[in-house]
Amino acid sequence: MTPENILFRLATQADLSAIVRLLADDDLGSQRERYENPLPASYSSAFEQIESDPNHELIVAEHNGEVIGTLHLMFLPSISFQGGLRAQVESVRVDKRFQSQGIGSEMMKWSLERAKQRGAYLVQLTTHKTRVDAQRFYERLGFAGSHLGMKLSLK
Amino acid sequence: MTPENILFRLATQADLSAIVRLLADDDLGSQRERYENPLPASYSSAFEQIESDPNHELIVAEHNGEVIGTLHLMFLPSISFQGGLRAQVESVRVDKRFQSQGIGSEMMKWSLERAKQRGAYLVQLTTHKTRVDAQRFYERLGFAGSHLGMKLSLK
Repeated sequence: MTPENILFRLATQADLSAIVRLLADDDLGSQRERYENPLPASYSSAFEQIESDPNHELIVAEHNGEVIGTLHLMFLPSISFQGGLRAQVESVRVDKRFQSQGIGSEMMKWSLERAKQRGAYLVQLTTHKTRVDAQRFYERLGFAGSHLGMKLSLK
Repeated sequence: MTPENILFRLATQADLSAIVRLLADDDLGSQRERYENPLPASYSSAFEQIESDPNHELIVAEHNGEVIGTLHLMFLPSISFQGGLRAQVESVRVDKRFQSQGIGSEMMKWSLERAKQRGAYLVQLTTHKTRVDAQRFYERLGFAGSHLGMKLSLK
């Protein structure tokens, strides 16, 4: 049921507005993002940092020339696990018009393959406790909810 | 009750063996680390990556010239939260002989202060669901367990 002609690739600066639109388009995101024209400069400044850092890959799903999904894949060097490389997934979004069509799953699988190719031994992510559908989605991909994710605001 | 003369600082290559000793010295760690002399080369290779990356700070607690605690603080640029900088804490350990004396708490507070100075808006971490004492420890520092932490092994 996944639409054909979905392309997964690294994001460019030209995708930034579409990415922010996706991040802003849910209950939590609408309170913390500013999807405006022009975008606040903090977005492009963050994009430049991500783009210039080989441990970060900002990924988009493109369909008929339009960005309809995004995911931030990061690689975390660590001493633990014998100096093993860990991968982490953040900011996963699929355009509401294209949800429940398998695009998120394809985007995740594509990203897990990249993480494997880079030699990561593990992929980790956190999802809000209330997002039960998201938990089931990640469980279907093989993730196990073994940990408690804790956050502390510094502002 | 915290011992005096505890110094928190960035780790150097000379601390690596002591750090691995701390990582190996618990139930989960003993199965996945190799605290040997000489250490497997993968440890120093990971250390070099961490040391050369300004987004990573490997921290140690030193007492009378001995490393008795460690913590890995990382900074994660992100598009979400208006391009906000996120901090993450991994691999927190205190030498068993020095536990329950407030050293972990002091080390965390020192690290949270560094994260604030770098402009991070949030600190995040995950802890295994079975580590109830660790959860209480982080709650006392102000962390809230709002998320489920999920992992997928790639090996």
